[in-house]
Amino acid sequence: MSAFRGHDKKETTYPKSKFFNPCFNSQMKTNAEIRMRGFLKRTPVPELLELIRKHCRLNRSEQVELEHLGGRVLAEPIRSPLDVPNFNRSAMDGYALKAEETFGATRYAPLLFEVVGEVTPGTQFGKTVRTGQAVRIMTGGPVPEGADAILIAEHAEAEGDRISVQEPVPPGKHIGFRGEDIHLGTELFDAGRKLRPQDIGLLASVGMQEALVTQRPIIDLLITGNELLPPGSKPEGVYIVDSNSLMLRQLAERDGAVIGKILHLRDERERIRKALLDSEADLVCVTGGTSVGKEDHAPTLLEEVGTLLVHGIPMRPAAPTGFGLIGNRKVFLLPGNPVSCISAYDCFVGLALRRMGGLGENWPYRSIKLPLSSKIASQIGRIEYVRLQIHEDKAEPIASGGASILSSTTRADAFLLTQESSEGFAEGEEVEAWLYD
Amino acid sequence: MSAFRGHDKKETTYPKSKFFNPCFNSQMKTNAEIRMRGFLKRTPVPELLELIRKHCRLNRSEQVELEHLGGRVLAEPIRSPLDVPNFNRSAMDGYALKAEETFGATRYAPLLFEVVGEVTPGTQFGKTVRTGQAVRIMTGGPVPEGADAILIAEHAEAEGDRISVQEPVPPGKHIGFRGEDIHLGTELFDAGRKLRPQDIGLLASVGMQEALVTQRPIIDLLITGNELLPPGSKPEGVYIVDSNSLMLRQLAERDGAVIGKILHLRDERERIRKALLDSEADLVCVTGGTSVGKEDHAPTLLEEVGTLLVHGIPMRPAAPTGFGLIGNRKVFLLPGNPVSCISAYDCFVGLALRRMGGLGENWPYRSIKLPLSSKIASQIGRIEYVRLQIHEDKAEPIASGGASILSSTTRADAFLLTQESSEGFAEGEEVEAWLYD
Repeated sequence: MSAFRGHDKKETTYPKSKFFNPCFNSQMKTNAEIRMRGFLKRTPVPELLELIRKHCRLNRSEQVELEHLGGRVLAEPIRSPLDVPNFNRSAMDGYALKAEETFGATRYAPLLFEVVGEVTPGTQFGKTVRTGQAVRIMTGGPVPEGADAILIAEHAEAEGDRISVQEPVPPGKHIGFRGEDIHLGTELFDAGRKLRPQDIGLLASVGMQEALVTQRPIIDLLITGNELLPPGSKPEGVYIVDSNSLMLRQLAERDGAVIGKILHLRDERERIRKALLDSEADLVCVTGGTSVGKEDHAPTLLEEVGTLLVHGIPMRPAAPTGFGLIGNRKVFLLPGNPVSCISAYDCFVGLALRRMGGLGENWPYRSIKLPLSSKIASQIGRIEYVRLQIHEDKAEPIASGGASILSSTTRADAFLLTQESSEGFAEGEEVEAWLYD
Repeated sequence: MSAFRGHDKKETTYPKSKFFNPCFNSQMKTNAEIRMRGFLKRTPVPELLELIRKHCRLNRSEQVELEHLGGRVLAEPIRSPLDVPNFNRSAMDGYALKAEETFGATRYAPLLFEVVGEVTPGTQFGKTVRTGQAVRIMTGGPVPEGADAILIAEHAEAEGDRISVQEPVPPGKHIGFRGEDIHLGTELFDAGRKLRPQDIGLLASVGMQEALVTQRPIIDLLITGNELLPPGSKPEGVYIVDSNSLMLRQLAERDGAVIGKILHLRDERERIRKALLDSEADLVCVTGGTSVGKEDHAPTLLEEVGTLLVHGIPMRPAAPTGFGLIGNRKVFLLPGNPVSCISAYDCFVGLALRRMGGLGENWPYRSIKLPLSSKIASQIGRIEYVRLQIHEDKAEPIASGGASILSSTTRADAFLLTQESSEGFAEGEEVEAWLYD
């Protein structure tokens, strides 16, 4: 589906949805309508994506120290405050001397130089190299005054305090001049750069201690359901173990978020209300109780304490997904069934977090194009989250519905999304598969 | 170069090097030979890779709790100790009833059922559903005894305590049967599986608290150089700021390692010796002082306190790379110049860490195939680490040597390695570019 973007250098421009209507909130179902009646109106997925883009903007910035900058996103461009290196240095182990004094040297008529000192990195010769003199120098050592070239060690024959030079060295040879890496004032990085290991090395080498980066969004997870036991429990009787908190935690960290609170709550309206109101996170995910059943408090609560912008989308699984706001706090309602939960996270919450943290919209998954080994049927107007196994360079669909069958996502190698405008894919048709790992 | 493996589903088998000779250690240069003389013998890169594979084996295993399993690698296969779910559950909001009692229902001759109770997830009806009865049930709720199908809420007309059913429901409809997700005894994962978010969710849902995974390798960084100031300092005079520790730290964490000690040491033989001997890490990287200059203590020290297996490789930059052992501890000697350091890390240390941690050999970088916008010359027998910018779907080489020009790696989008057996690439030739981000 073109509305989702891959992890790809090329940014595709998202077309403004023709469905977008900033006033459509007034068309929302009321509390009485949505319980036990099914979704009266589902919000098209492009419209939900557009709302996420509208409401999830870049976080504020903060100063962060060098060693914690890995993967962070610059909030301002950075120019170098100095030259790197700050001095002329030797690029090789050898001898610093005056180049023109070597002119004419041959194997048959070698020239002799007196070795008058030694420079290692972090030290200085302190004097000026004079006619007939050479200074032993190690890679990275500052080139002494008077010298303008480095004769590499392998090309000199050392005899006591003298060296014999058998070929001429051109001026500047094997010298790394001041500023050869970075000149003062050079723009090193633009705002929005996601810092790579070498970028942070470069910031260190120009003498920075910290950098201004976009704050990572904080996410709270409100895991609701009377049937749920916390992770680490043994399932028994009518109870099952919550898997969503573990999955969401890791996916959110992958998308640059910081985990705030993870609360396991019973399906009790006042507890959930309190947790929603008490949150200090940038974004809250409520899992479970997001559909139209009697115990599904989340949508009506969000309507009461904030704004329910979207409830119900034409996507399978993940239909009972919701999105809204409490003040400036973003709230996602994620279905409790784990496959619905993971697909709704990946299609919507991940996008929100990456936008807030400055990581851009691209999916962290790699994609490959493969032919399908059997057809996939889909209703027009609906998006299917289809899990795939890859065998012999073909993608085999193993599940499309099955909201509660988490093992369908662990047996799968990849997933695809069908297009809203299509009836699916024919056998042999090439599809874009997103690799889970 | 085929000896390096991409981040790709397909494992390529690495051909045994024809150079491999387990006795070649006896051919190593001695202390006196290597100082200020250049490398007398360079170890071919395939031979170094083969030595890394030989000496860097899978770490031991450890039990780790669920919430810390993200990205960890299973050390044993896992079978499910139970059925998931442990009971028959409703897949929809609706009414649990006996399917055959709905047979014959039509819009014109609806059938009435008495709603005798309600089941939500985590609760039980407790009684048996009898003829003419229905139980209101929410998604995930356990199907009461006596009922064998779920009529979805939208298909029933509720009138007080009664519902009117207008179409028949087949037996089993909308029921998720016990074990539908996972059957007791099913193999969930094989040993070696790198756990994805959904995998950890699945482990939780079968009632596990922890899993046996491969220990992450611990890495110590010994950063040597009298010219170096620690990161966060301002460079001044003949001093420069260490960038390698920051880069290595992040690269090692990316490759699944745990950072042990990071020590900044002067080029003093006894201090470096002590640090090498005191290390309790699985792997030690010494940066700086790894070449053949007078202050290059690391190779001769490693020869003294352990075994120097490799010193000097035909690769540019990164020629002064070394590898050896102190007991079972792996020791890499990495050139101090930052581009050499990063390329030697990526080609060798990363491989070692990933193998020890069970992450496999594949590079974490994504690759793309692109034509070159200008030619790259390389000596036969030598590998060049060439930094590339990508413009208009072409790869433009921006640097190949330049060991000290760290900005060449920050201005680049990608890198490539030339093949040992080739003289480089022609303009327009398609190359495999490894994307830095």
